[in-house]
Amino acid sequence: MKEEKEKVKITFLGGVGEIGKNMTAFEYKNEIIIVDAGLTFPDDDLPGVDIVVPDISFLLANKEKIKAIILTHGHEDHIGGLPFLLPEINVPIYGSKLTLGLVENKLKEYPKIKAKLVAVKPRNVLKVGSFAVEFIHVNHSIAGSLALCITTPAGSIVHTGDFKIDFESINGQTTDLTRFGELGKKGVNLLMCESTNVCRKGYSMSEKRVGETLDKLFEAHKDKRLFVATFASNIHRLQQIMDLAEKYKRKISFTGRSMVNVSEVAMKLGELKYNKENVIDIDKIDKFADKELLIITTGSQGEPMSALTRMAAGEFKKIDLGENDCIIISASPIPGNEKSVYNVINKLYKKGADVIYDELADVHASGHACQEEIKTIHSLVKPKCFMPIHGEYRHLKVHKELAVALGEDARNIILPDIGMQVEMTDGHIKIAGRVQAGQRLVDGLGIGDMDSSVLKDRKQLSEDGICIAVLNLSSLSGEISSDPFLITRGVVYNVEQEQFMQDTKDMLINYLKENNQRDIDPNLIKQNVRRQLSNFIYKRTARRPMILVITLFD
Amino acid sequence: MKEEKEKVKITFLGGVGEIGKNMTAFEYKNEIIIVDAGLTFPDDDLPGVDIVVPDISFLLANKEKIKAIILTHGHEDHIGGLPFLLPEINVPIYGSKLTLGLVENKLKEYPKIKAKLVAVKPRNVLKVGSFAVEFIHVNHSIAGSLALCITTPAGSIVHTGDFKIDFESINGQTTDLTRFGELGKKGVNLLMCESTNVCRKGYSMSEKRVGETLDKLFEAHKDKRLFVATFASNIHRLQQIMDLAEKYKRKISFTGRSMVNVSEVAMKLGELKYNKENVIDIDKIDKFADKELLIITTGSQGEPMSALTRMAAGEFKKIDLGENDCIIISASPIPGNEKSVYNVINKLYKKGADVIYDELADVHASGHACQEEIKTIHSLVKPKCFMPIHGEYRHLKVHKELAVALGEDARNIILPDIGMQVEMTDGHIKIAGRVQAGQRLVDGLGIGDMDSSVLKDRKQLSEDGICIAVLNLSSLSGEISSDPFLITRGVVYNVEQEQFMQDTKDMLINYLKENNQRDIDPNLIKQNVRRQLSNFIYKRTARRPMILVITLFD
Repeated sequence: MKEEKEKVKITFLGGVGEIGKNMTAFEYKNEIIIVDAGLTFPDDDLPGVDIVVPDISFLLANKEKIKAIILTHGHEDHIGGLPFLLPEINVPIYGSKLTLGLVENKLKEYPKIKAKLVAVKPRNVLKVGSFAVEFIHVNHSIAGSLALCITTPAGSIVHTGDFKIDFESINGQTTDLTRFGELGKKGVNLLMCESTNVCRKGYSMSEKRVGETLDKLFEAHKDKRLFVATFASNIHRLQQIMDLAEKYKRKISFTGRSMVNVSEVAMKLGELKYNKENVIDIDKIDKFADKELLIITTGSQGEPMSALTRMAAGEFKKIDLGENDCIIISASPIPGNEKSVYNVINKLYKKGADVIYDELADVHASGHACQEEIKTIHSLVKPKCFMPIHGEYRHLKVHKELAVALGEDARNIILPDIGMQVEMTDGHIKIAGRVQAGQRLVDGLGIGDMDSSVLKDRKQLSEDGICIAVLNLSSLSGEISSDPFLITRGVVYNVEQEQFMQDTKDMLINYLKENNQRDIDPNLIKQNVRRQLSNFIYKRTARRPMILVITLFD
Repeated sequence: MKEEKEKVKITFLGGVGEIGKNMTAFEYKNEIIIVDAGLTFPDDDLPGVDIVVPDISFLLANKEKIKAIILTHGHEDHIGGLPFLLPEINVPIYGSKLTLGLVENKLKEYPKIKAKLVAVKPRNVLKVGSFAVEFIHVNHSIAGSLALCITTPAGSIVHTGDFKIDFESINGQTTDLTRFGELGKKGVNLLMCESTNVCRKGYSMSEKRVGETLDKLFEAHKDKRLFVATFASNIHRLQQIMDLAEKYKRKISFTGRSMVNVSEVAMKLGELKYNKENVIDIDKIDKFADKELLIITTGSQGEPMSALTRMAAGEFKKIDLGENDCIIISASPIPGNEKSVYNVINKLYKKGADVIYDELADVHASGHACQEEIKTIHSLVKPKCFMPIHGEYRHLKVHKELAVALGEDARNIILPDIGMQVEMTDGHIKIAGRVQAGQRLVDGLGIGDMDSSVLKDRKQLSEDGICIAVLNLSSLSGEISSDPFLITRGVVYNVEQEQFMQDTKDMLINYLKENNQRDIDPNLIKQNVRRQLSNFIYKRTARRPMILVITLFD
């Protein structure tokens, strides 16, 4: 009898077909390990929703199998879902020191959650049941980023996490190409490689280049008060900025909630090297001259409540911007944020400040590999099977084309999507089925308590407003016993409001007089009145507000 | 006695501090000429609004002075406001043949408007009262684009309109640099120059380069059905695409309302050269093999109702996309449209089609001048005074810096904004005052009938929904005479709805029992109940829906 081949199942719960809320489960018999637990921020089509995390029905149904959560790095799209996962599934969490520092910081807001955090280092091998997980150093826009080599009974899997290859990295350590090569030589069954920048030719810019540009800008604006807005989690960027402050003899002050929090975590962990006496509280900046100050702030994405956005709007108490200020936005707008970022820039300029941003100078480097870097990993790992991850469908598709061009076998490439379950045996992968998966919406205190009807309502309300009619009907005569009561919100302008309301009310009274409602099903009354109102308002305004009819009988 | 210097007033009604709804008035004594009359599309902060046009209060107050409307070119941000201006101010309109063809086409939807359209050609000089307006040929992403030299009693003004300098332009005519040079030699008092791409170094790409890329793509996808999505108004792009169809022996079919309309206008005017037998109706495409077809479509910006978006969603009756299709998106996403465009691309890929877009190949060239082109115009025109136009504040600011770097006098540079009135005398400009100006919102049939309270309402409704409470109170006893009636929309999910409503109702009944409302001002009752409800719902959901309280007394 032929021996049954060993099988490992890979279930995608997020991060494929999208950029955000990464989460994947690796399953062998009665054991599951989870890689990453991210969140994503909602699109315009989810009005009022705060954040989106993966639907974890699959994990809840397999709760007893789950042995570990492994984090590749500390970005929100990899760790931000933990507060919504841990109350249900509290298994040990493995990650680099910085990643876990950021998790700890995040969990401060959830005092009920007691997480078991275990720090790991590159080249460490973690045994979890039948899995062995090796951690591999990679460059990325956050320190402490790790790729994984997951050895399973069905062969080994290299999972890149998010990465780039930076030969001039700030801490002197390039992505561990040697280890990728060694693993490739030993034989890798499956490569799962990120795809964010797969549409970009060539190589990503080195982080050091950003430092060189910033150095020139510090020199050119010697006499001004300097501000740098960047991502709080980009520790190497922060290190370069703090080193320049040292060089140009400026005191450093952090502002913005996440900037203060993350920099504190990184300084405490020794991930940021600095001179204690050079870091001052934002309340102390008045004691120094403009040219002695460097303020590192949040708001590089034009986020509405961030420090920089409030400064630009003149709503930030401690800082009043003017002509002796120079603001460097050391970031690119994430797609969708362009308008907010440009709005902030326009306001900063109007305050008289100098503004330097990525369109004007090399003040930002992406943390994601471009085509040649991605090819490097494929060539070193030489996988039998391949699945592109961490990208919208267009990225995954282009990544597949790239792999095929490198000689990989298209039959052993799968483009995963959320809910897909892939079965891996040695030398082969196939789609095995689908599980329930998707979005859990977090809105206020509610988690997952939103459905499409709520969002559809909000959308209609936002576009055309609402009109409410309260009818008092006599149940005996079927006639109206007093004038209908009308309210609108978001429909017509004040000046026109009065006439519009009067005309609408007159129409309604006439309609009810002409159409006696005695013995008519109240639901039908509502339906008829709603139609009358809707048509009347549409003719008058070409708008289709939501219409609610309340009937009261006496 | 010293003679009073001649003065010309320039009033900005749109297009400065923003990209969109361009409109400027030039005034000498009792004469006004208007340059451009554009529209803009609303931001996310104007939910439900269809389009935005300039507030024309200033023009209405000076109606009898207005002598002419002059159009630089046929883009919506320069002509789209006409239907909302002409009913009030119907003066002759001057522009190139194509510009006026597009205006005519647009006005078909407004049969009541009888416009007086007068076609002009480059180097023509138009006399309007004391003004002489000379038209100058410029390259741009629409044919028939004109810069202006407006000679006035207070000196001459060069207004670039939108332009680039394309040495390999499709119709063989480069921006008329000679004429700019001649005017500069004669002496130009004021330059008004567009700023869209002033942050981009170097030169814009030539339109011909796009043609070369498209040629390669036509060659590489010989056997497939080809689609090109682009801006309907980019006639030179269409010409290149149609020429390639000829070369590769494909029939051409236009789809999408604006593509069909604009191509018809351009073909009728002779602005597009083509073989009649090669252009077929979209209903006839079934008669041809895939490799014999080229479909030119709208939707390059991912617009929700456009032909390409509907094809991608499988909602376009006549065309079903599949693996033998190749779609070229010959455009860049306009800031703010990125997500919609990428959504469409993802869906096209999922249909199995090949997709080529600007991230992957040189399939689009901007129509706006980059830094070196802008410097060329400054150097030729050598103006005494300068005002950057057609840009957000950041563009105007960078443009000023560029002008100063070229040696222009910062004291003679003004950064205009909407509502600003600038007074020009020979050799000098100064801010003279402000007029009422801004946005008129067009939403359904309403023009300008929206105010910020309507939009604020819509925004609140969209984020947290609405809760309506109807209270029946006895005016005698001050007690509730029947249970309160509650409705919510967009607040909580169905599953939770019932419990939530019951609890809220109970709270309300308790509150009203404990707090007798006899002899209390009905407004105060409403206010108190609203506060109770708001706090209760916030505690329960962390949401702040709009709350409406209706009190009925018996």
